[in-house]
Amino acid sequence: MEFEEKTIRRETIFEGKILTVAVDDVELPNGLGQAKRELIFHKGAVCVLAITPEDKIILVKQYRKAIERLSLEIPAGKLEVGEAGSEAAAALRELEEETGYTAEGLELLYDFYSAIGFCDERLRLYVAKGLTKVENPREKDADETIELLYLTLDEAKQAILTGEIVDAKTIIAIQYFELMRGNGHAKALADR
Amino acid sequence: MEFEEKTIRRETIFEGKILTVAVDDVELPNGLGQAKRELIFHKGAVCVLAITPEDKIILVKQYRKAIERLSLEIPAGKLEVGEAGSEAAAALRELEEETGYTAEGLELLYDFYSAIGFCDERLRLYVAKGLTKVENPREKDADETIELLYLTLDEAKQAILTGEIVDAKTIIAIQYFELMRGNGHAKALADR
Repeated sequence: MEFEEKTIRRETIFEGKILTVAVDDVELPNGLGQAKRELIFHKGAVCVLAITPEDKIILVKQYRKAIERLSLEIPAGKLEVGEAGSEAAAALRELEEETGYTAEGLELLYDFYSAIGFCDERLRLYVAKGLTKVENPREKDADETIELLYLTLDEAKQAILTGEIVDAKTIIAIQYFELMRGNGHAKALADR
Repeated sequence: MEFEEKTIRRETIFEGKILTVAVDDVELPNGLGQAKRELIFHKGAVCVLAITPEDKIILVKQYRKAIERLSLEIPAGKLEVGEAGSEAAAALRELEEETGYTAEGLELLYDFYSAIGFCDERLRLYVAKGLTKVENPREKDADETIELLYLTLDEAKQAILTGEIVDAKTIIAIQYFELMRGNGHAKALADR
């Protein structure tokens, strides 16, 4: 059985600052004919599970225009031009800019696609090790209005139930936080 | 502190079969001026964590054009026109079409956005209860070429490590599978 869908023709619809939109005509495998695929291309992003010494997860409250509402999320940011290959550095930068914390190290937990059915946005989720406050942190982007929250695991799980947290990457991070707790942190990491 | 970004002007760039693309000029809160937001609108989708009586998770292998590679994912499908409000029925349909299984019931585990930074695709993840084989299952979409895999929890975790699984919703489902195991299924559900 063949799976690959070969592009016969690509029409680029839009090239924006963060998104490129294309429609491909594809040849389906196994003689199934042709189909159209609506596709979104994105440079990728990084995000960080950061647990304070008080055992609280750092979350960022922000307005999300696509859904016209507030959202509570782990610190995250888009990769900028030239940052391919230095994703951990980008994650440290976003962590510092958004939260004022830095980390002795970052460990990659998951490397995944957010909306694989139509979009190539690749997300790298790190866990911060050795979290410390920065005295004069780098400033965040000028167009960002954010507020920081520090939640216990139980409070974070509650925020999923109440719908304050509705973001896939943040749910993955909170589940991981819970798995770390259940197994002991060392075991969760050793299992990887 | 204000968070809302008010739309001054929306330019609709593309209206496709599954995606609508727009660029908004927004008024930033707190006197920060204006900014552009590139936005993708999507009708939403459903997905199902289905565990067989042999304690294996059902995964669907398929080609994903946006990333030009194969991907292993939980059964999922887009909502069709008129399915708002009957998402569980849509999830049962997708489960049957893709796997040949049906369920006595579905329980909603998470209701979330896949790529909240720029896209309103809302995903509902259900867990199937009382999974049974259907004798003559509904046929899948004509343009889908898929293969089914049945993995134990350990095999599924391994598939994340090897990069066969790179899909956010599937990672959420597998972590939930692990949390169910760790806590006992009843407790994981009672905790919700």
